[in-house]
Amino acid sequence: MTRRLLLISNSTTHGSGYLDHCKEQIKQFLTEKIQTVLFVPYALHDHEGYEATAKKAFVSLGYQLESIHRKTDPVTAVGSAEAIFIGGGNTFRLLNALYDKKLVTEIRRRVLQDGVPYIGSSAGSNVATASIHTTNDMPIVYPPSFTALSLVPFNINPHYIDPSPDSKHMGETREARINQFHEYVSSPPVLGIREGCILLVEDKVAKVVGANGARLFMRDTAPRELATGDDVSFLLKEC
Amino acid sequence: MTRRLLLISNSTTHGSGYLDHCKEQIKQFLTEKIQTVLFVPYALHDHEGYEATAKKAFVSLGYQLESIHRKTDPVTAVGSAEAIFIGGGNTFRLLNALYDKKLVTEIRRRVLQDGVPYIGSSAGSNVATASIHTTNDMPIVYPPSFTALSLVPFNINPHYIDPSPDSKHMGETREARINQFHEYVSSPPVLGIREGCILLVEDKVAKVVGANGARLFMRDTAPRELATGDDVSFLLKEC
Ligand SMILES: [Ca+2]
Ligand SMILES: [Ca+2]
Repeated sequence: MTRRLLLISNSTTHGSGYLDHCKEQIKQFLTEKIQTVLFVPYALHDHEGYEATAKKAFVSLGYQLESIHRKTDPVTAVGSAEAIFIGGGNTFRLLNALYDKKLVTEIRRRVLQDGVPYIGSSAGSNVATASIHTTNDMPIVYPPSFTALSLVPFNINPHYIDPSPDSKHMGETREARINQFHEYVSSPPVLGIREGCILLVEDKVAKVVGANGARLFMRDTAPRELATGDDVSFLLKEC
Repeated sequence: MTRRLLLISNSTTHGSGYLDHCKEQIKQFLTEKIQTVLFVPYALHDHEGYEATAKKAFVSLGYQLESIHRKTDPVTAVGSAEAIFIGGGNTFRLLNALYDKKLVTEIRRRVLQDGVPYIGSSAGSNVATASIHTTNDMPIVYPPSFTALSLVPFNINPHYIDPSPDSKHMGETREARINQFHEYVSSPPVLGIREGCILLVEDKVAKVVGANGARLFMRDTAPRELATGDDVSFLLKEC
């Protein structure tokens, strides 16, 4: 079976609706073989509201959507899912819930062994990677670990943003934050995906797609610009 | 003995040098009774470089500065410190080091029982509070807990920044992030201190000082603006 991931930087692009900017990619990714998507709303507090938003977007694309928060046994729901979509919100809250509900191993098994297509957006892309060490979110809850689903062996920084030369704010730039992560010896590569950027993984091939590029950071290496269409399959090799 | 804290939002203000914007407050806070300040550089990777920067600032104010990273026994160094300054950087790295070196209990004891003056800047202000749940930093390392020194019973968000109406970036605003924290039932108040803002605590009295105000967030309550000079002693009561 083939690992298939669609990792989206941001659910909403400025001035357009929820998932509007990546509808075509989602349709191409899920194809007509998929009928129902299992939605994971745990990154936000309001599961019902989040379900309604996500359902509207997927129904408009011709898919049914069922939210895992309605299932009596979430592990069984993952076990029979045709496709999984994990939405954005707070990455700490999301990963904490995945551990709490014993879903980490089961989602990993379904995606890597059974080839269940996985769509992640923002926090949902963070948890798909090696760890949540490079989330932008506030640590509002303490998860049992920062190790994530490890569907790929590197990290993502969603909503990647270049330093603003006009800013008078003294908080660290995104690049400075990622460089701090790479001060740790065994830290993996970090793919900073700008808003509009999407990473498509099909088995051993990874590609930058979507309307915007990415910036790749690796320990002891100068950062590197990546454009739409670039092949980044080398990132899939275990370090 | 009296608890005395000077909690600074940011070490450097745009266009001026390290600690320049709060030199007067530091002098008034430490007074002439203090001769040597114990510096904690653990929030940054480069301890020596950080020590040099901090030493320059404190020497210019008439104080000696010794960095804890040079001490063979950091716990003993805290045990005999006249005053403590914890600098900014990455809050996760800092708190992880404080736990690793068994300093959490000893710093707390010295400040709360012995009245040793404590200065924190940015990450150093975060760790002075109840927890680091409201840091802005990237979680580059997994500390054994998010519970911090608890020198005060509430949280701080340093470098607090108001939403920018012109921004097209879709990451959460600072206020939205803090609101997510307050979705948790027992979450304490969060004082968002803008760059330039300083919180001065003397025993049971807390005041907003410095060149800029703060914004106070409490669960189930509308946010509240605070200006320089405002008394916030009510925040010191244990919830
Ligand atoms: Ca988020
Ligand atoms: Ca920082």
